[in-house]
Amino acid sequence: MASYYALPLELLAEEFAKLPGIGLKTAQRLAYYMISRPEEEVESFANALLAAKHDIRYCNCCQNLTESEICPICSDTDRDHSVICVVESPKDVTALERTGEYNGVYHVLHGLISPIDGVTPDKLHIRSLLGRLQGGAVKEVIMATNPTVEGDATAMYLAQLLEPLHISVSRLAFGLPVGGTLEYADEVTLFRALENRTKM
Amino acid sequence: MASYYALPLELLAEEFAKLPGIGLKTAQRLAYYMISRPEEEVESFANALLAAKHDIRYCNCCQNLTESEICPICSDTDRDHSVICVVESPKDVTALERTGEYNGVYHVLHGLISPIDGVTPDKLHIRSLLGRLQGGAVKEVIMATNPTVEGDATAMYLAQLLEPLHISVSRLAFGLPVGGTLEYADEVTLFRALENRTKM
Repeated sequence: MASYYALPLELLAEEFAKLPGIGLKTAQRLAYYMISRPEEEVESFANALLAAKHDIRYCNCCQNLTESEICPICSDTDRDHSVICVVESPKDVTALERTGEYNGVYHVLHGLISPIDGVTPDKLHIRSLLGRLQGGAVKEVIMATNPTVEGDATAMYLAQLLEPLHISVSRLAFGLPVGGTLEYADEVTLFRALENRTKM
Repeated sequence: MASYYALPLELLAEEFAKLPGIGLKTAQRLAYYMISRPEEEVESFANALLAAKHDIRYCNCCQNLTESEICPICSDTDRDHSVICVVESPKDVTALERTGEYNGVYHVLHGLISPIDGVTPDKLHIRSLLGRLQGGAVKEVIMATNPTVEGDATAMYLAQLLEPLHISVSRLAFGLPVGGTLEYADEVTLFRALENRTKM
């Protein structure tokens, strides 16, 4: 059967379908939607794509995404540069910043150790983290990787690596999510909540 | 709280969030994904957007999306130009073409009559449909709008409009979807299936 799709539309749908979590049906719907929009809107989308790719780089210090050499967090003198929170990805920085409670700085690994996926420690931004710890100004490193097998393994690996430096290494607390119920908590979470119970 | 997002990333996420069915969380995820891709891939996406918008136009005859003045279906002399199937959108043309059973031509209305949303008949491509029916070469018009309130109203409106032209006007059959079960069919569908029962 011959295809009666217009070719540029088909190509656009294919581009949308490459995005994670977007299937072919949705991609076609999005392609149709885009060509129904005014020209300025489509151009502003295309420009945003190119600008984001061209203008964003890794911070020379913490490896977070930024437009400048050093990101706003690393160059903020009001923040406590003696505490470094180690996270997997820039998204995690945003999540922690949303709490409004953390005043230290970050270090973004850009991945987690996962030998199955071929991600060995040398593929993560660990060397630059060790570089930041050389001066002796850092007092604490908080492992804020996800509570998954890979997240735990990465935190454990880094903790062992930092042991000779005599820097305090901590891990985010695990337990019941606030607003959650015991009934729906999984066994591992409940076990951790019990294990890490605090005095009232 | 100050935002520590890089601005171009935030702008790209906003563009993604404008797409139908994509919320802010997904938009941010997609924006992060895009900047993690190689530069050629991002450029090919941006170019596909611009090409689709610039190169696609409405067919002068059936109003379907095409790259040329007249779409491949309208310019295909092997097809039966005496039967016109009226649909809401180009997506419906693709759906009907997939059946591989229809050999007539189409007319795309680009919408359905919906006074609540301010869509009156003059906003649809009805005038060009009437123009195509003037020559007397068209023997049948098939109303293939969706079986919704707006789809039915539009089909009804057009049927009345075409009455003086003495052209056969038909509507797609309604009934049980193939592979469906009586148990899960809604009352209206079941009623229509009963009403339109065919002799065995």
